[in-house]
Amino acid sequence: MISIAVDAMGGDFGEKPIIDGVLQALEENKSFNVVLVGDENLLKPLIPEHLKQFVSYEHCKLVFPMDESATEALKYKESTIYKAIDLLREKKVQAVLSAGHSGATMSLATLRVGRLKNVLRPAIATLMPNINDKTLFLDVGANTDCKSEHLFQFAVMGEAYAKELMNISKPRVALLSNGEEDSKGNELTKESHKLLKKLPNFVGNAEGRDIFNGKIDVLVCDGFSGNIILKACEGVATAIFSMLKDKTKKSKIALLGAMLMKPVFKSLKKHIDWQEYGGAPLLGIKGCVIISHGKSDSRAIKNAIFQALKFSKSNIYQVIESELENFEK
Amino acid sequence: MISIAVDAMGGDFGEKPIIDGVLQALEENKSFNVVLVGDENLLKPLIPEHLKQFVSYEHCKLVFPMDESATEALKYKESTIYKAIDLLREKKVQAVLSAGHSGATMSLATLRVGRLKNVLRPAIATLMPNINDKTLFLDVGANTDCKSEHLFQFAVMGEAYAKELMNISKPRVALLSNGEEDSKGNELTKESHKLLKKLPNFVGNAEGRDIFNGKIDVLVCDGFSGNIILKACEGVATAIFSMLKDKTKKSKIALLGAMLMKPVFKSLKKHIDWQEYGGAPLLGIKGCVIISHGKSDSRAIKNAIFQALKFSKSNIYQVIESELENFEK
Repeated sequence: MISIAVDAMGGDFGEKPIIDGVLQALEENKSFNVVLVGDENLLKPLIPEHLKQFVSYEHCKLVFPMDESATEALKYKESTIYKAIDLLREKKVQAVLSAGHSGATMSLATLRVGRLKNVLRPAIATLMPNINDKTLFLDVGANTDCKSEHLFQFAVMGEAYAKELMNISKPRVALLSNGEEDSKGNELTKESHKLLKKLPNFVGNAEGRDIFNGKIDVLVCDGFSGNIILKACEGVATAIFSMLKDKTKKSKIALLGAMLMKPVFKSLKKHIDWQEYGGAPLLGIKGCVIISHGKSDSRAIKNAIFQALKFSKSNIYQVIESELENFEK
Repeated sequence: MISIAVDAMGGDFGEKPIIDGVLQALEENKSFNVVLVGDENLLKPLIPEHLKQFVSYEHCKLVFPMDESATEALKYKESTIYKAIDLLREKKVQAVLSAGHSGATMSLATLRVGRLKNVLRPAIATLMPNINDKTLFLDVGANTDCKSEHLFQFAVMGEAYAKELMNISKPRVALLSNGEEDSKGNELTKESHKLLKKLPNFVGNAEGRDIFNGKIDVLVCDGFSGNIILKACEGVATAIFSMLKDKTKKSKIALLGAMLMKPVFKSLKKHIDWQEYGGAPLLGIKGCVIISHGKSDSRAIKNAIFQALKFSKSNIYQVIESELENFEK
């Protein structure tokens, strides 16, 4: 039975949404155990009798501070995230889920659990909604300054995730650039393009809009570009809905229209809501680490747990290692 | 009277929307002249009698090919864009407007017209809608690989545009990064942050979402980041409206709702539609060059002409030169 260590205290809203998410996941699927990492006295009363058999505890009270630098992560040995990662290191669990300090999580995963063979840098991947389904987008923040070898490896790891976890047998892998032509890009993308051509599933350069139009399955870039795009896209969606609301409020007829359109808006919001997509898997680590948004609600945590389960049961580690091994030769 | 050279043939849809835009502008405002650069035989019949006095021609038939590299621009001496830029070089016009090959336009502007004193690299700026008004965003494509000195100058030029053309006396200038803290960023943004601190109106790092929430007036980044963000944001907006349409079509009640909300959708689309915003000014050149979207309709061209007029009448050249001079010392 798979065990998942959950950092129960790391999120922006404390333990409540995280425990609720864990319980919802257990109600739906009793095929796993959870180790709650956090204040046992606080957490124990939150678990109902019929689910107690699936839950154990790793007691600690310290939460890694959000305003602390990730480089300090090793010093906080008593923090929930350190303890959770060490459970993975000691193979007491198969997966870690944290909505806490993402930099610290990544840093501890890299330093304490370690990278898969031949992986130069782990990458944070995220699932973005597109008009048909989802696009895997990486790196979205782990590596602000990259070399072409890193981007090549991100592509290999993203492709493996798409194959093993998204059930896409031939994922269309693209490189983010400022134009589709091979010659487009900055120095990094031009160099990377040459390396990515070695991948049979590489479909060439893609532009930012291709994240959403369903033309590609995996989009690769450096962590700085990925992160700024992620936040800009969130910003556009938020601004559109906020302006729509403001303008609607000014007319009674429009308000009535909005009422009639409510199911449509709801379904659209659900499709583009990151909370539906689980968390962001950290790829390239010898274990499953899922980084959840600090503002995750119980639904996001529940989905991240199911994602962790799927990840832990998959062959992704072997696929990444054997692919990189092949290219090393 | 200000004269504007208009590349009449460079857009994706030929001369029609461009001439329509020119005529609409002249109908509203007869305080300028236009030199239409293109096939005189084709263009002349499109100009109605009462506007003929405002229009002259620079005859040429060649359009710079969209699939040609910008580095070849100097070789196409008979192209509409080359001829238009040379009118500016010879001071026969005060502004150039082109919806053609943007790389060629920029390259010719730099090589044939030249940079303002102390300007290292010209930048393409664009206006993005935010929940209140507009945010000036640069560079969005002129310079794919930048140094911190370039980003510093983009900030100075963007600030000058906001002051002189957007009537903002103290524009809030920010640097695009992957977090608001001073320490966030890649090597380039960290270096640039130190330089930008010299600007009194610098408000620190901003994230992609800040383009849209009205917190800043000018956002600075390298041309690669700017371009990928621009396209990703277009992609989000397009995807949201396309999904909204698809979902609405499936329900008669929602369709009725959408009908009642039509004025709201229309007003929202107008606010976020780039065609309303004119073109993208090329900053740092000894003259006014406005780069319009290849897919510009007549409205976009009309707005770009008014933008060119305002630009030509402004003090932006002096402001940029004197600011850079001050910082040189």
